[in-house]
Amino acid sequence: MDKILKVNTRTNDIRWQACSADALRLGGRSLIAHLALMEIDPNCDPLGHRNKFILAAGLLGDTNVTTAGRYSVGGKSPLTGGVKEASVGGSAGRRMARLGLRAVVLEDVPDNPQTKILVVSKDKAEIITAPEYKNLAVSASLHRLRDQFGEDAGAICVGPAGEMTMAGAGVATTDKTGVQIRFAGRGGMGAVMGSKGIKAIVFDDTGASPAEFYDRKALNAANKKLVQLLMDDPKTENRHNYGTPAVLAVCNALGILPTRNFSEGQFDQVDAISGETIAELIDQRGGMGRKGQPCIEGCVIQCSNVFPDPEGQATVASLQYENIALLGSNCGISDIDAIAELNSLCNEVGLDAIETGAAIGVAMEAGVIPFGDAHGAKDLIRQALQGTPLGRVIGNGVVITGKVFGVRRVPAVRGQAIPAYDPRSLKGIGVTYVTSPMGADHTAGNALELASSMDPRSPEGQVEASRQLQLRAAILDSLGVCLFIRPAFVKKPDLFAELLNARHAFNLTFEDVQQMGVQCLATERAFNKKAGLNTERCDVPEFMRYEPLPPYNTVFDISNAEMKKIWTVEPIQNQF
Amino acid sequence: MDKILKVNTRTNDIRWQACSADALRLGGRSLIAHLALMEIDPNCDPLGHRNKFILAAGLLGDTNVTTAGRYSVGGKSPLTGGVKEASVGGSAGRRMARLGLRAVVLEDVPDNPQTKILVVSKDKAEIITAPEYKNLAVSASLHRLRDQFGEDAGAICVGPAGEMTMAGAGVATTDKTGVQIRFAGRGGMGAVMGSKGIKAIVFDDTGASPAEFYDRKALNAANKKLVQLLMDDPKTENRHNYGTPAVLAVCNALGILPTRNFSEGQFDQVDAISGETIAELIDQRGGMGRKGQPCIEGCVIQCSNVFPDPEGQATVASLQYENIALLGSNCGISDIDAIAELNSLCNEVGLDAIETGAAIGVAMEAGVIPFGDAHGAKDLIRQALQGTPLGRVIGNGVVITGKVFGVRRVPAVRGQAIPAYDPRSLKGIGVTYVTSPMGADHTAGNALELASSMDPRSPEGQVEASRQLQLRAAILDSLGVCLFIRPAFVKKPDLFAELLNARHAFNLTFEDVQQMGVQCLATERAFNKKAGLNTERCDVPEFMRYEPLPPYNTVFDISNAEMKKIWTVEPIQNQF
Repeated sequence: MDKILKVNTRTNDIRWQACSADALRLGGRSLIAHLALMEIDPNCDPLGHRNKFILAAGLLGDTNVTTAGRYSVGGKSPLTGGVKEASVGGSAGRRMARLGLRAVVLEDVPDNPQTKILVVSKDKAEIITAPEYKNLAVSASLHRLRDQFGEDAGAICVGPAGEMTMAGAGVATTDKTGVQIRFAGRGGMGAVMGSKGIKAIVFDDTGASPAEFYDRKALNAANKKLVQLLMDDPKTENRHNYGTPAVLAVCNALGILPTRNFSEGQFDQVDAISGETIAELIDQRGGMGRKGQPCIEGCVIQCSNVFPDPEGQATVASLQYENIALLGSNCGISDIDAIAELNSLCNEVGLDAIETGAAIGVAMEAGVIPFGDAHGAKDLIRQALQGTPLGRVIGNGVVITGKVFGVRRVPAVRGQAIPAYDPRSLKGIGVTYVTSPMGADHTAGNALELASSMDPRSPEGQVEASRQLQLRAAILDSLGVCLFIRPAFVKKPDLFAELLNARHAFNLTFEDVQQMGVQCLATERAFNKKAGLNTERCDVPEFMRYEPLPPYNTVFDISNAEMKKIWTVEPIQNQF
Repeated sequence: MDKILKVNTRTNDIRWQACSADALRLGGRSLIAHLALMEIDPNCDPLGHRNKFILAAGLLGDTNVTTAGRYSVGGKSPLTGGVKEASVGGSAGRRMARLGLRAVVLEDVPDNPQTKILVVSKDKAEIITAPEYKNLAVSASLHRLRDQFGEDAGAICVGPAGEMTMAGAGVATTDKTGVQIRFAGRGGMGAVMGSKGIKAIVFDDTGASPAEFYDRKALNAANKKLVQLLMDDPKTENRHNYGTPAVLAVCNALGILPTRNFSEGQFDQVDAISGETIAELIDQRGGMGRKGQPCIEGCVIQCSNVFPDPEGQATVASLQYENIALLGSNCGISDIDAIAELNSLCNEVGLDAIETGAAIGVAMEAGVIPFGDAHGAKDLIRQALQGTPLGRVIGNGVVITGKVFGVRRVPAVRGQAIPAYDPRSLKGIGVTYVTSPMGADHTAGNALELASSMDPRSPEGQVEASRQLQLRAAILDSLGVCLFIRPAFVKKPDLFAELLNARHAFNLTFEDVQQMGVQCLATERAFNKKAGLNTERCDVPEFMRYEPLPPYNTVFDISNAEMKKIWTVEPIQNQF
């Protein structure tokens, strides 16, 4: 696992490069940061010939460590204008890693775009022209890829939104069974992939030799500890049984549930869309269920669900908290079947459901359609598929939608929609939105887990907390493991080093691992600085500093000066 | 002439402030820069409650110096995100100055916007609710204001585009006769004014006491010299006879005429839209003619025209070069009557014709309508008036249009459309677009006048030239005089100081006046730096560095490093 595959999408030139010594110590998010800073002009047009689309395996990508095998996509984001990384599960990442690949880099753009597929197998990569995939919806694309390349091949693809280079487009993938549709959703990476004329990338690891691990026994032992710590944590069972929708009631109680375009923090019809309701409906209606859905082989949490319509037929898999919040309460929609359909539509078009839900909320505020109009919301997403002017506006995300319709309440930081946690009543995540090189992204450091141990509405201590959360997120995304295994590292901070040392013959201490996170974020900030994204301009949206959020009537009151100190504050000792 | 009128558009509170000693030495553009830096948070939402709309009279605003009486509008721009100033003639500026006003500042935004008019007369200012003006087209608004407040009152207004806060909206005004419609077009200042809920500002200087000039005799003598120098310059007669369309053939020959969305620098049907053709048509068709149209009382150039339809009825006044280029050749449209109608439509909706023409060109490249489709182009502007999604996209300018439709050839710098001079074959103006705090604005330092004295396609010496042009432009816009009187100052650089000293009892030398320009630009850069617009990110559009421009097959090849030196290069001695 030491090669980088480079594909010039204009010339179809394919090169295999050995990883540099520096790159060998990086993976996933940190490898993307490194390659971006080394190879991409930070001032380039994100959808032009000088940007690159990078797919990177995590440092534990080829292992059986629980949840490992996730991978990252990244490059310069058409939304934030800075470097972006988005991580996802599914089966492609581990296959890519098992092919000995640390990264795949798509370079340049075609002069005359045709729909193409990059197929990577043992010691071989080729580009296939595949016009039959043009504008094909995501699930049809993934099923067709499965038929064409076999169910053991892992694939990623973009939907029509990516092909149309809409800045709200994500990169889709599926698990081994083909049931789930998962997205590396944030930052518009689907548009970057689409700009390269590559509809899909397929990894077939048939015949690939198993990687040589430095100490397989130690790795297994460390994984066993990790699994045990997870099984001992009550959150694991809760996630297994209810999935991410479980937090909806929590967020509503905290007053941070985006409601009617972030004008409220609690939804009056919350019961209709809560995790409990969803679980009941799945149980009543049947289908593939709410437990035990695979996202990645070997995951012991398995939080995914398959949400069925009243006849028990799958509507969307998996139905997740953020999407329910943005497409549901944020749009004033309480019909959970309609929300599931909206989510499915986003998936099929290949749009990030968070960005799109936020854009629809802003369009509702502008009066394009009324709040609560699920039928109208579906039409907006269908219009994106058709490429109408209105559909393209929505597909390009919340900031463009706000500008076009002259809306002042636009929930975005650094050009990217704020996810399902209003920072006025969860202040730590606001610090993350503003100071993270990723912009408004809950996976970059979510303070929700601290809501019971510190006052989420007090400005005190949030900068320090966000720093710690951001470091840990960067490390997890560099290893290619799920953010949900974090409780294990809170209890046993040395576990990161154990896993990495056993896999790679590193000689890392706890501090070294923390330093990996620091370095990753510093590299990303260096890229963003060169891209002109200086921190002085960045803040939460203006309305969040002035408009009190019901029910707690909070505003975001951590000063920019305070937030700017984040990379100079003392780390919290021995803690992830 | 020493007061500033401040109007809170939320509370209707009106305050008269004395000018500070610092502000007394500033006017027009430099006063806007100063007030913006002192009073506007550079990080504010340009269309939110913390931005201010500033109207500022020039330092010679209340004099009879030829072309004086122009005024500036400014604030934080919704297009560039930095401070913006746009200057315009008409009769309002001098009346404002004669009322003793250096500036009018609209603050805050209304909670419940109603259509309002601010009426300023001797020692009095009031806000009138005027629902009958809501969404009224520009010429109808200006005529109604004339009827309501008398023809001696000077007025400015926004069109429906400004009321809808479209970022391509300008601020309109007219001359004393009410024939011309003139725009402070660039930077979206119409949207800022519109966001304040103020449809129009009327200045009635009835009964105002004449200002006391320090040395009226010396001022008259200096003005006489200025007029004589202008009359001796052959450009003056050419401008009087043909107006700005005269340069169309020049720009075409230089290969800098925007054609089919900046893909070419010469238009194959140039003869159909040239200054000569326009002059002939006006002569043939009759109407109010092509000479002697007033823009501002006392102007000895009088470059404006009234362009008639085949029946001799006025279509648009004045038909100017930049608008012909952006709405004509840039859209592949060669029917001059259609171009005049397009220009008139932009005027009526209240959109900057440059920004809008560029946006239509990008929409044409995206295939929304074909190049050359004048009927389709008119429909796009009408859609802006109707506020349809497509119309709102176009009305928000070229960058939004490019993003929505996924176009890579987007002619803009700092978010603002490149005007009618392609920088690949007129490199000095490219330096201005990139380094000026104003973004892509030909009035900030146009290298066209140097095209005969230095090679416009060579990168040599362009940074120094742009510096000098930018300084002079800043000074002219601070005095409130027309850029077309610059030839007088090239011949007699001391004239600026003479005029200012006679009016204000200043004691300025040539170097002091240059320093005024330096200071104005430095203040603007300071604002922009705080707004996060750092220079590292700014460049000509990517395609202009890679895509050769026919017929000379030039690319823009002055490096950013070279351009960044602009404020450190030595000034050219004694030269404006």
